[in-house]
Amino acid sequence: MPVSMCNKDILYMRTALEEAKLAFDHDEVPIGAILVHKDTGDIVSRASNKTIEMSDPTAHAEILCVRQLCKTLKVQRIPDYNLYVTLEPCPMCAAALSYARLNKIIFGASDLKSGGLTSDIALYEYPQIHHKPDLVSGILEEECRTLLQKFFQQKR
Amino acid sequence: MPVSMCNKDILYMRTALEEAKLAFDHDEVPIGAILVHKDTGDIVSRASNKTIEMSDPTAHAEILCVRQLCKTLKVQRIPDYNLYVTLEPCPMCAAALSYARLNKIIFGASDLKSGGLTSDIALYEYPQIHHKPDLVSGILEEECRTLLQKFFQQKR
Repeated sequence: MPVSMCNKDILYMRTALEEAKLAFDHDEVPIGAILVHKDTGDIVSRASNKTIEMSDPTAHAEILCVRQLCKTLKVQRIPDYNLYVTLEPCPMCAAALSYARLNKIIFGASDLKSGGLTSDIALYEYPQIHHKPDLVSGILEEECRTLLQKFFQQKR
Repeated sequence: MPVSMCNKDILYMRTALEEAKLAFDHDEVPIGAILVHKDTGDIVSRASNKTIEMSDPTAHAEILCVRQLCKTLKVQRIPDYNLYVTLEPCPMCAAALSYARLNKIIFGASDLKSGGLTSDIALYEYPQIHHKPDLVSGILEEECRTLLQKFFQQKR
């Protein structure tokens, strides 16, 4: 991976982290996401997890980003976009991102226990999941994980 | 299963099928769902698949029902409700219904190839999916399947 791409990924993940911090400030599980055009690099959508605020168990940051952009573009599929998200998507989001024909998922912290990609659920390894976005992991992993740990420590 | 319960299931599935037919008439994949209170039997939410109309790849009938009811009740969890849906939920919906702490899923046609429950994805068999709604399958299976087949035959 060229250094310039790596720097870009870090920059974008910082923006996703800003969204995660907004969630933290609103007492929501601190996860944030943004959607970026794969060629122009434009940030076209950003969201923090809002399951409590919206009274919606599906209002994860990833889903909100996808809903926002699809509504704006009046489409159901967004193959020209990459998603940056602070935590590995859960199985629900992993499936939704496949249905949306997303180009690439770049995530911060892995979720080896309950994630939809690297846990033993590993949704994209099933042949019936036809579209599998490219995956990049570990961008600002430490910062993304620390924010989540801080949140759950406060809750104990 | 007592006959009276069985008759009730058929009655509710007919209502879900009405929603599926609405989807068919709007050129959407014909799947419909309703949410019913597990004790009172009141139908509290109903939806047809609207991924095209809403420009939202997550706008499956099940997800729309859950969003509607959670918004009305201002909650994220609906443990007192049963979902009737004409097709076995996909992995995205199966995960969402678990997060919503749904009581029971009653579905019409099975989706042995791509479903989230009876295909080899079988999401609820993973221990990290903490809440597993009860499952009932095969209610008005033939009618539910026939409507889907008619839709896809037209598309060829």
